[in-house]
Amino acid sequence: MKPYAELSVQELTDLRAQLKAQYKEYQSRDLELNMARGKPCVEQLDLSMGMMDVLASDSDLTCEDGTDCRNYGVLGGIAEARQLLGDMIEVPADNIIIYGNSSLNVMYDTIARAMTHGIMGSTPWCKLNNVKFLCPVPGYDRHFAITEYFGIEMINVPLNADGPDMDMVEKLVAEDDAIKGIWCVPKYSNPTGNSYSDEVVRRFARLKPAARDFRIFWDNAYSVHHLYENDHDELIEILAECKRAGNPDLVYKFASTSKISFPGSGIAAIATSSNNMEDIKKQLCIQTIGHDKVNQLRHVRFFGDIRGMKAHMKKHAAILRPKFETVERVLHEELDGLNVAEWTEPKGGYFISFNSLPGCAKAIVKRCKKAGVVLTPAGATYPYGHDPHDRNIRIAPSYPPLADLEIAARLFSLCVKIASIDHYLEEKGVVKEK
Amino acid sequence: MKPYAELSVQELTDLRAQLKAQYKEYQSRDLELNMARGKPCVEQLDLSMGMMDVLASDSDLTCEDGTDCRNYGVLGGIAEARQLLGDMIEVPADNIIIYGNSSLNVMYDTIARAMTHGIMGSTPWCKLNNVKFLCPVPGYDRHFAITEYFGIEMINVPLNADGPDMDMVEKLVAEDDAIKGIWCVPKYSNPTGNSYSDEVVRRFARLKPAARDFRIFWDNAYSVHHLYENDHDELIEILAECKRAGNPDLVYKFASTSKISFPGSGIAAIATSSNNMEDIKKQLCIQTIGHDKVNQLRHVRFFGDIRGMKAHMKKHAAILRPKFETVERVLHEELDGLNVAEWTEPKGGYFISFNSLPGCAKAIVKRCKKAGVVLTPAGATYPYGHDPHDRNIRIAPSYPPLADLEIAARLFSLCVKIASIDHYLEEKGVVKEK
Repeated sequence: MKPYAELSVQELTDLRAQLKAQYKEYQSRDLELNMARGKPCVEQLDLSMGMMDVLASDSDLTCEDGTDCRNYGVLGGIAEARQLLGDMIEVPADNIIIYGNSSLNVMYDTIARAMTHGIMGSTPWCKLNNVKFLCPVPGYDRHFAITEYFGIEMINVPLNADGPDMDMVEKLVAEDDAIKGIWCVPKYSNPTGNSYSDEVVRRFARLKPAARDFRIFWDNAYSVHHLYENDHDELIEILAECKRAGNPDLVYKFASTSKISFPGSGIAAIATSSNNMEDIKKQLCIQTIGHDKVNQLRHVRFFGDIRGMKAHMKKHAAILRPKFETVERVLHEELDGLNVAEWTEPKGGYFISFNSLPGCAKAIVKRCKKAGVVLTPAGATYPYGHDPHDRNIRIAPSYPPLADLEIAARLFSLCVKIASIDHYLEEKGVVKEK
Repeated sequence: MKPYAELSVQELTDLRAQLKAQYKEYQSRDLELNMARGKPCVEQLDLSMGMMDVLASDSDLTCEDGTDCRNYGVLGGIAEARQLLGDMIEVPADNIIIYGNSSLNVMYDTIARAMTHGIMGSTPWCKLNNVKFLCPVPGYDRHFAITEYFGIEMINVPLNADGPDMDMVEKLVAEDDAIKGIWCVPKYSNPTGNSYSDEVVRRFARLKPAARDFRIFWDNAYSVHHLYENDHDELIEILAECKRAGNPDLVYKFASTSKISFPGSGIAAIATSSNNMEDIKKQLCIQTIGHDKVNQLRHVRFFGDIRGMKAHMKKHAAILRPKFETVERVLHEELDGLNVAEWTEPKGGYFISFNSLPGCAKAIVKRCKKAGVVLTPAGATYPYGHDPHDRNIRIAPSYPPLADLEIAARLFSLCVKIASIDHYLEEKGVVKEK
């Protein structure tokens, strides 16, 4: 197929008419497909149903240290859950606090605490005139929503294939003590699926921020969420690296089992230095008597240990892999050679990041929606929902059944083609058809 | 028995020596008893073990509206859980948001949100020079800990047998727009066990606070926690009463199943007006994608409906009632006629509130501890841990086995007697024996 850029106005116009006819055919199908959120599919949820049986009315709900998990207490989480999640994200159990069902909630609470009480004795952020966060883009909309909600100014930093632009990160945090944090999804990043290189992690651990209350918000959402059997991205563990670099308190690491057991009914955690943990627990003991230990125990009894969890993740991969492969195959079949798009082909995580020609993303998403395929809103991967080039679209292949995905990806490609033609026609001075 | 006040110095001194000998005997027993916290006992926890069986690996975890409880979503909680907890605290299901496992956490988050974002458009409290809360005393230490943590000034208001001193409450909230809230445990109050009268509730609903962001923090922790079969305290429902009074947005009502199913593994809720709910959800949708719906469903399937829950609460009562009766009986047997103490005999809840002679509470708690019986620290029932008369002690009879409670209550009474004698000896100018 010839690149669209080389087509004449007439060729583009003719092609557009053909594609429009195909689009109308899709519209007539009354599709209702959703590729908007990183939502596990039913078959994935079924994988964890055994969790409903591990605790029964005749079970002993006592944990190893003798704690009755049914009663109040144990602010930081039961030891065996800290061990399991510690192994999952490669940190010592002593550096973990287990929370409730949502790592997003832990991140929110971490920012909320910094707003009202500062970090390790620093001025509460709500007392400062200016608080800023660095936001590698494209990134995770719910991160940006938290910082926006608290009135924190967000600064875009390009996210490259090997991680954020570290020259820029280093320069900005060294210069400006109003910069208090950076959002990172280091492994199988949301939405690119790329992972940070060793060099990027090492440079993160060696940041010299002007603000002593600067923290890296390391959202390790996809630590064990590989798609392929023997081809995993592996990262340098950031807590240990920060310690080696003499920066032990620089990072908060977040994780959960939301996409391992059940979204909404998993367990979440923060991992950080003992200084940070002490700081956090001063607040946490005011906020709660403790999180849901029965659910912690349920997770431990179900997975057994990290080997059990890894075996379980292979079952997830077996369901997810064909979904990613389907989308990627269709994109290749439909778009190769047209020079109108690029996309990532990650080895893990939940997303494919798709870049259209500039100024096309909103139109593509809108057109998909009109034919019954819902995507993450264009712009959502940028702070304030503003993609300066209007080109990034996050594709979430996990939820729809395989057959639907094929259809959705075809329709999506079709909408990409139409939008790309409109882009070139506009470039050539042709007024866009309504 | 003669009132201690009528004993001579010699009589007091002799009696003290006898009591001291008895105390030494208790010390030699190496007791390890705890009456410090409102912690359900093992038999109570066992009552809910059936909850472990209601969901199994072959269960359908779909709720009535078709939502798969295993996946993301449903910010406000599933409809059937809102119905169950709505019935439990006598509010419409539409006025409830279901949270995670802890109503304390909901209260904390409510204050935290007001600090950073105000209430329904008001100035965030963190931007104000002065924020105050009214604290009926004696009250719940964890309430006071939250307000103290956020630097909110706490003002003591006497809690009478029928509720807070409403003349004082009405006057203070009308005068001072820095007063933003009041902590209330309206039913089987912590620690007195008393409930607010109809008149008090009506006056609460008709408050005319100077601050339009003033809210009543109505901690309905013991709504169905009756001790006796047919002798319940019943309250006017505050949300409806506020509506009738033209003050629909005045109150946040909190509740949980912590002392119904499992402490730490129950479900919590806030009930409030639709205006307040809208205000809350603006924040909640940033903080989380949703709370644990599987656990919500587990509760609904286990209790069935409010009748099931009320039947369940009768089983709790059957366990708790003898414990309260034991403590009350021993206190009567040991202290009646001495004129050195008064205590409440509640019809529900988790606590007995005990008042010693002034200046004795710390000494009593300390002496109990030295003999192996742990009580809530004296002062804990007051803001900043400061009981101006050093006389209030919260007794929590729920956790220890019945036989232990009898011993603990005897020892406690003994410590009360010794401290009371010391009080009178000091009054008479006799230097206290070491």
